[in-house]
Amino acid sequence: MTQGRIAALCAGLVEGDRRAVARLLTYVEDGDLSQRRAVVAGLPQPAVDPRVIGLTGAPGVGKSSVTTALIGALRATGRRVAVLAIDPSSPFTGGALLGDRIRMQSHHADDGVYIRSMAARGRLGGLASAVPEALMVLAAAGFDEVIIETVGVGQSEIDVIAFADTTLVVTAPGLGDAVQAAKAGVLEIADILVVNKSDLSGAGRLESELKGMLELGHLVGSISTADWVPPVLRTVAVRGEGIDALLAAIEDHGIRAGLPAAERRRRRARRWLSEAVIELVRARLAEPGGALESQLAELAQAMVAGTLQPFDAVDGLVVALGLDRPAGAPEQT
Amino acid sequence: MTQGRIAALCAGLVEGDRRAVARLLTYVEDGDLSQRRAVVAGLPQPAVDPRVIGLTGAPGVGKSSVTTALIGALRATGRRVAVLAIDPSSPFTGGALLGDRIRMQSHHADDGVYIRSMAARGRLGGLASAVPEALMVLAAAGFDEVIIETVGVGQSEIDVIAFADTTLVVTAPGLGDAVQAAKAGVLEIADILVVNKSDLSGAGRLESELKGMLELGHLVGSISTADWVPPVLRTVAVRGEGIDALLAAIEDHGIRAGLPAAERRRRRARRWLSEAVIELVRARLAEPGGALESQLAELAQAMVAGTLQPFDAVDGLVVALGLDRPAGAPEQT
Repeated sequence: MTQGRIAALCAGLVEGDRRAVARLLTYVEDGDLSQRRAVVAGLPQPAVDPRVIGLTGAPGVGKSSVTTALIGALRATGRRVAVLAIDPSSPFTGGALLGDRIRMQSHHADDGVYIRSMAARGRLGGLASAVPEALMVLAAAGFDEVIIETVGVGQSEIDVIAFADTTLVVTAPGLGDAVQAAKAGVLEIADILVVNKSDLSGAGRLESELKGMLELGHLVGSISTADWVPPVLRTVAVRGEGIDALLAAIEDHGIRAGLPAAERRRRRARRWLSEAVIELVRARLAEPGGALESQLAELAQAMVAGTLQPFDAVDGLVVALGLDRPAGAPEQT
Repeated sequence: MTQGRIAALCAGLVEGDRRAVARLLTYVEDGDLSQRRAVVAGLPQPAVDPRVIGLTGAPGVGKSSVTTALIGALRATGRRVAVLAIDPSSPFTGGALLGDRIRMQSHHADDGVYIRSMAARGRLGGLASAVPEALMVLAAAGFDEVIIETVGVGQSEIDVIAFADTTLVVTAPGLGDAVQAAKAGVLEIADILVVNKSDLSGAGRLESELKGMLELGHLVGSISTADWVPPVLRTVAVRGEGIDALLAAIEDHGIRAGLPAAERRRRRARRWLSEAVIELVRARLAEPGGALESQLAELAQAMVAGTLQPFDAVDGLVVALGLDRPAGAPEQT
């Protein structure tokens, strides 16, 4: 029955049914493997290959305001825009944090804008496989632009940003200095650095520090390429200041440093494939009452008791999973 | 040759050789599978089962100061303390951020303190498998306490904190409000909440907000258990204020809400085993020039060309890995 409903929702995408988008994303986010499979198989061939803009930064820098301003600027050029706002798996997300989402919903009445919070709390593979599947849905729904906004600055969030064509790292004065931004590990993923709230004191100093660190990074060859040195741009997103220049920089990055579309799509596909398989392994290991669960428990017990070397326990698990006998390996007869 | 060197280093642990600790941790962090295997197999049986304290929070809240103060308090009770400071894989880590580590090194001359930054940038499995192996080394080296300090507040960092017996989430006034802390997804992992820099204005308000959110979480049953409601404690870590109370709360949590030692060790072993196997799958998928790499590229190409459904490509990868033939499954004859 679910399969039939998913097929109907996929058909609805073609007709621009927004509720179909929402429901398909829910299947991607919380569904089981067969539901996700049905969604991905049922999607109509996308007419567009959306540009994906990644946006990250520490809490409090005004990421949502920058996103809202970008939506406005992109809509002014007639582009259809979807936002995936990645929230951590927090029981609070539904309640206390709604304010932000509501602020963004100033675009709510606009049919060319779709905003979605995503938690992927039901997924063992987490965001790394859920986000590319959500991108497939949004592409099929005809969005020209997808903004992936991640809250927080951790490794998983940085991994998700890797699906973006252009990545903005947003900073703001008064939230720790540039060293703190470097600490958060996000400077090196930035294609463009944004100093938001740049009307506050300290913005000039932050801008200089960031430029200094970029130079340092340039020296060690970690950030810039021959074709692209990340610019540092100032914005006051709540007043729309600096947003046109930001959008121009995003375009510029795509033209000068972007991969060809076909290569970009292949890379995304490879990444998703790897993550989907790893999610499958995780699912097998975690399956309650499964054969693997008890083997895992036994191996852990032997390891703790000191009767089995830890890596011998890993070998045992490799055998239990069948990973010792890959396709093409000589079969036992 | 490496194997012999590793065996000698493991013997050095028993004699309290600090350089042996450092080198073994380097093998764990950057070594290949055979080196990691040799390290783990060569470790002497630990005399102690260290208590693991997790400490996390947004950039700028003063995590390093809290850690430094905790070290002092724990040393005063005669405990040997190791710190694993988890830095993101940043090319900047070595340079600009050294300040923090140096500050902690006020304990440098003390033989009962060992401080280590960890990046795990050479590891495909990342911190989730590197940290438990580092814990094995530190246990064998006779540390009574290990503080895992994570910079940043993302999902990977939260996953690492899951290895801790007691988790402190550090906040500070003036760095965004409690809503931002909730956004970062860390409130629900806190066993103890710390309002550091509590001499600054806004500390009282932050404390009230956190208590309010805990109550909300308590209502939805997500944080507290029957035995433990996370306390909110105020500290001024740079002056050592509130640290004794913090340490008392950590002890209290261990007694009232901690798992029995054997169960704790089994859970850690199970987690590490799962992560070690997943890291192995990742390594196979990423191996340059390997059979899987070309199969992955072909499957991705077919997926992009539209000749293969995405999940059929996943099936193909499952077969290539051998995951379709787990141990105990009927063999083809």
